[in-house]
Amino acid sequence: MSKGLVVLAYSGGLDTSCILLWLKEQGYDVIAFLANIGQDEDFDAAQKKAEKLGAKKVFIEDLRSEFVQEFIWPAVQANAVYEDRYLLGTSIARPCIARRQVQIARQERAQYVSHGATGKGNDQVRFELTCYALYPQVQVRSDPSETHHLSLLMNYLYQMTKNPEDSPSEPDVLEIDFAKGVPVRVTHVKEGTSKDTPLELFCYLNEIGGKHGVGRIDIVENRFIGMKSRGIYETPGGTVLLHAHLDIETFTMDREVRKIKQSLGIKFSELIYNGFWYSPECEFVRHCIDKSQENVEGRVQLSVFKGQVYILGRESPKSLYNEELVSMDVQGDYDPCDASGFIKINAVRLREHNRLQGATQKKL
Amino acid sequence: MSKGLVVLAYSGGLDTSCILLWLKEQGYDVIAFLANIGQDEDFDAAQKKAEKLGAKKVFIEDLRSEFVQEFIWPAVQANAVYEDRYLLGTSIARPCIARRQVQIARQERAQYVSHGATGKGNDQVRFELTCYALYPQVQVRSDPSETHHLSLLMNYLYQMTKNPEDSPSEPDVLEIDFAKGVPVRVTHVKEGTSKDTPLELFCYLNEIGGKHGVGRIDIVENRFIGMKSRGIYETPGGTVLLHAHLDIETFTMDREVRKIKQSLGIKFSELIYNGFWYSPECEFVRHCIDKSQENVEGRVQLSVFKGQVYILGRESPKSLYNEELVSMDVQGDYDPCDASGFIKINAVRLREHNRLQGATQKKL
Amino acid sequence: MSKGLVVLAYSGGLDTSCILLWLKEQGYDVIAFLANIGQDEDFDAAQKKAEKLGAKKVFIEDLRSEFVQEFIWPAVQANAVYEDRYLLGTSIARPCIARRQVQIARQERAQYVSHGATGKGNDQVRFELTCYALYPQVQVRSDPSETHHLSLLMNYLYQMTKNPEDSPSEPDVLEIDFAKGVPVRVTHVKEGTSKDTPLELFCYLNEIGGKHGVGRIDIVENRFIGMKSRGIYETPGGTVLLHAHLDIETFTMDREVRKIKQSLGIKFSELIYNGFWYSPECEFVRHCIDKSQENVEGRVQLSVFKGQVYILGRESPKSLYNEELVSMDVQGDYDPCDASGFIKINAVRLREHNRLQGATQKKL
Amino acid sequence: MSKGLVVLAYSGGLDTSCILLWLKEQGYDVIAFLANIGQDEDFDAAQKKAEKLGAKKVFIEDLRSEFVQEFIWPAVQANAVYEDRYLLGTSIARPCIARRQVQIARQERAQYVSHGATGKGNDQVRFELTCYALYPQVQVRSDPSETHHLSLLMNYLYQMTKNPEDSPSEPDVLEIDFAKGVPVRVTHVKEGTSKDTPLELFCYLNEIGGKHGVGRIDIVENRFIGMKSRGIYETPGGTVLLHAHLDIETFTMDREVRKIKQSLGIKFSELIYNGFWYSPECEFVRHCIDKSQENVEGRVQLSVFKGQVYILGRESPKSLYNEELVSMDVQGDYDPCDASGFIKINAVRLREHNRLQGATQKKL
Repeated sequence: MSKGLVVLAYSGGLDTSCILLWLKEQGYDVIAFLANIGQDEDFDAAQKKAEKLGAKKVFIEDLRSEFVQEFIWPAVQANAVYEDRYLLGTSIARPCIARRQVQIARQERAQYVSHGATGKGNDQVRFELTCYALYPQVQVRSDPSETHHLSLLMNYLYQMTKNPEDSPSEPDVLEIDFAKGVPVRVTHVKEGTSKDTPLELFCYLNEIGGKHGVGRIDIVENRFIGMKSRGIYETPGGTVLLHAHLDIETFTMDREVRKIKQSLGIKFSELIYNGFWYSPECEFVRHCIDKSQENVEGRVQLSVFKGQVYILGRESPKSLYNEELVSMDVQGDYDPCDASGFIKINAVRLREHNRLQGATQKKL
Repeated sequence: MSKGLVVLAYSGGLDTSCILLWLKEQGYDVIAFLANIGQDEDFDAAQKKAEKLGAKKVFIEDLRSEFVQEFIWPAVQANAVYEDRYLLGTSIARPCIARRQVQIARQERAQYVSHGATGKGNDQVRFELTCYALYPQVQVRSDPSETHHLSLLMNYLYQMTKNPEDSPSEPDVLEIDFAKGVPVRVTHVKEGTSKDTPLELFCYLNEIGGKHGVGRIDIVENRFIGMKSRGIYETPGGTVLLHAHLDIETFTMDREVRKIKQSLGIKFSELIYNGFWYSPECEFVRHCIDKSQENVEGRVQLSVFKGQVYILGRESPKSLYNEELVSMDVQGDYDPCDASGFIKINAVRLREHNRLQGATQKKL
Repeated sequence: MSKGLVVLAYSGGLDTSCILLWLKEQGYDVIAFLANIGQDEDFDAAQKKAEKLGAKKVFIEDLRSEFVQEFIWPAVQANAVYEDRYLLGTSIARPCIARRQVQIARQERAQYVSHGATGKGNDQVRFELTCYALYPQVQVRSDPSETHHLSLLMNYLYQMTKNPEDSPSEPDVLEIDFAKGVPVRVTHVKEGTSKDTPLELFCYLNEIGGKHGVGRIDIVENRFIGMKSRGIYETPGGTVLLHAHLDIETFTMDREVRKIKQSLGIKFSELIYNGFWYSPECEFVRHCIDKSQENVEGRVQLSVFKGQVYILGRESPKSLYNEELVSMDVQGDYDPCDASGFIKINAVRLREHNRLQGATQKKL
Repeated sequence: MSKGLVVLAYSGGLDTSCILLWLKEQGYDVIAFLANIGQDEDFDAAQKKAEKLGAKKVFIEDLRSEFVQEFIWPAVQANAVYEDRYLLGTSIARPCIARRQVQIARQERAQYVSHGATGKGNDQVRFELTCYALYPQVQVRSDPSETHHLSLLMNYLYQMTKNPEDSPSEPDVLEIDFAKGVPVRVTHVKEGTSKDTPLELFCYLNEIGGKHGVGRIDIVENRFIGMKSRGIYETPGGTVLLHAHLDIETFTMDREVRKIKQSLGIKFSELIYNGFWYSPECEFVRHCIDKSQENVEGRVQLSVFKGQVYILGRESPKSLYNEELVSMDVQGDYDPCDASGFIKINAVRLREHNRLQGATQKKL
């Protein structure tokens, strides 16, 4: 008699195949779930393999479009970067995959879920927190003797990006149009081609970024479980979008709103990294960031070349940039006296501080 | 009879020469002060010019070494970047120049200071706030009809950096040693040469970074006086140091200390940009950031190539990176059960939230 | 011929009467605008006085209801307190008054506004920033020789609150119902009476709070213009609401949402104090705080007595408080092993830190 | 043969007596450690009881003085309050007790520690995190069947404070002198008596505060382990000090330093509550807060009455309060024109925002 039904996040690789077998041995019925989030995989072969290993059912699901729109786009809006450097690629995929897995578990009336992300990694946390958040009664089953890490997401090194030393010696110039803080069109200026569905657009940026070796990093990062670890990542499309979004955002967003939004973005990045995509605070922060993007609209022109993204210019109907106001040659409304007053009032506090210290000489 | 004595921050250029003449016309005695912070300038010619225009005295001061150590180094420790992109080059020079100018004013018993940074810019604020903070009784004199901007610091476009398209097709590989969060030695791996005084080291990084076109940006930024303006900047040495310091810092600093320090660094950047280097809060923040750097020590190896800096590796006697602890193949002290417990306790709150919403299905 | 039309925020007192006369002398036509935000004033007498002094028109407007709903309620949602102590009474009134004044100016085609809040105070900033934000073309006219402060809002000392030493020796017990973070009903438990319109409810809390001497403070505060100043304030109703709202909020809001919301509340308080109610960042922050209040719903019972507010209990249909979960005697779902794992994983980082320092003994 | 040596945090009560017996049954040798942090306890009786139950040794340690100076004083400097209301009484005691316990364990070569704070509480986390941080090799032993909570610290309800309804109808007026942000003397104005050692001073404030019913709260709080729980606390002396310290701090500290320090204080409170007193980030934050207190010096006069603390006045040699500067009647250095300029420059951004929205009318 079956111990119950488990939905396993199956990758087609060795690790999760072992888990499938182990679950069967323990007496569980197993549903294999294989998510397509854009990885290079022979899904048919994986399906057959899972069936052969004894999976009761196999679900293969194309999550690419919802991954881009519901998960990557909010990260773009937030300029999400963990610890100043990591663009969070696989961290963002986790809740997307686990959400669908939990949906399958509910629909198939499975009480258990399983995955291959054990060991000491972040992915276990991200996976399990999402499952508990969305299906509080679910239980996680994993082989306690198993200490392998998730092969699917971890063991490629620079699959998408060329080595910048070998990349083309001619830049590609792109224009990216944004509305409400997300890209809505990418145009290759010279070729005149453009992409405007989220999935196509993002894949195209991965392609162009990858061709020029953009977005490679070799870092040490701080895992949620308290260890430092080394990570080698590539996020070509994400890096292009980060540069472009930062530019159009600063162009169209009020300075003080930006400061508040910046700290919310840092919080958001940390929440994603630690696996809290589905948490009340992350929902709250996403809402606030989305609100901040209402006027983030316009076009950025940029050049991609030898591992780097260069902003060439920007335009927007919502720009707060006022050429006349800022010009040194046009006086307009701006009275230099006001600037003196502004500075003097800002100095009141500094002068008092100096007076109190009675020690100007010493300080100099 | 003289109206009093003015110390003028003199650049040798047209703008400040006009101010010198205007101050003389108004009846002031003028001391010309010309700071060497590393700009490309014929200081002898400038001295003669100032004397010819009627300056009572001319001070030419080499501030390069104190500029690097007392101003740039704290910015390196802070990873100081304004609005996620601007490395604050000239903003940091301002308080260094104005500090010396105020010292001269006190020493020469001048009640007035003057400068060429009028108009609508940030530099006026930075200059005057520093003067008021360090010499509360001082008064600023400037030509009210004058609306030119400071030529010295603004009108070069990419003087230090090569266009990455024309930069060498071979990278340079450097090793940078840090102690207490500041660089203490740079070594060119292939050539075996090294620099270890702050000024030499920083100039060398400017040279190597410049040769490879590192650190160019074209941005829109938010000025303190409330306008957006476009800025084109190059900070080759600063960019190399930012990458290297970020790396060694993450390697050696506790995760939670880093988070707090990161927000202090953002605050510090904003204070520098807005001209508050000499303020109680900036002194406080500098102190705290400096404290955080106690263990930021070690060596970073990096490659500089085609406008980009690539981290190749790092080592440190103070590293918190524990290869054995983090390894997926060594169990050691680490009990997978603990991770499950950790995740379950972190999920308590998320499950309660879900329970309350009573709406798991809908959320899915 | 008239120099133009000025809308003057008129208080009926000496200061603004002087300004009215001065504006007439200067050749302006003057519209007197007198806002009723709940102060103790004979509005008919004030109208007659303004007419006698030569006001072309007099507007007397009852803003009490919009003041409570549009200005005080958001401050309650935010737990708005400036510098940990000041509940921002008059700071919140300013934008409410100035908004209506600007509406009148637009409607009457006046290019000028004027007010009595000159001197060194915050109220001038609050007034003028609101005017410029809502009517960018408007100009402010004020008597440069005039250095009086605003009598209306400043020179009462404890008009609403009794001295706690003389207050009743019996507490009043109230129940306050909240929905979406704002009070919707106050019930006097013993008397069985209740109030449920915003204005009545707030006036009643002022009355009960005042009767028991609640909400008096004597503080030194930091003005926006950089000075410290002493302030003596009373906010009886606001203080009762602050206690009650804090309680129901903590009862119903997720811990991590609360942390983020707390920092937004501190920002909001500072923005209100400094006069930035009508600014992009304040609109953004208000929106985010309002979003956080969706589930802040329920009833708080409290006692008001001798200057103090004591929370007696709370209940809510949206509570995240789970008696069974938290009980020490019910094991339920909660596995003590999970807590040990949680603690051990949290300690990984601390142990590494200790290991690195190699100096446990010394630290002890 | 013994399984090893355990140092048990012993309270003299039923719970820890049961644990002592259980540890003996399991085959451990037990050292009982009883900390005196000011609780009402018959230490001799407790010692005898522990010996009778089979403790190999009994350590009774008076930690009161170090508790006040090393733990409570930093909390006073920080204005440490968890979730806006809880003054962290027992949370602060935990690391003080566990530190000494770990010292005894090292000194006696014990590999194990034990405590009575199991169940679902915060105290288990605080205790164990401190032990692991200071003695990474230590192991915790606790009875897995035991679910009682720590009686020592939890089950008194209002032992120190009188019911305000029954408290004296005459206030006590005190003067508290601060240096570097900590109290150095308390004087009873009428009686002319004063206390100036930390322990005496703090006990005296507990006595006076308790006599007047100060510092009682009934709250719901968010535990680190993710549950909401109800807490009833009394911190009479701490509440008096919080009011006094807030006052002298605002009087002597620069506004902008205060803002940064405020957010550090909130972080510090959270760290204490969650048990991270001995962590790199808490050490860092304590250092920064301590630095901020350099000029927090002076005397606060206050009245304690019927559950409330009223500030009556303050004075300080380090005050940034400048009566002449702030006076409405003295013009001095302060030019009203500067204020207008200050406001206009602050409005640049607001006007641009309005212009962009092109919707002023609608907004009104």
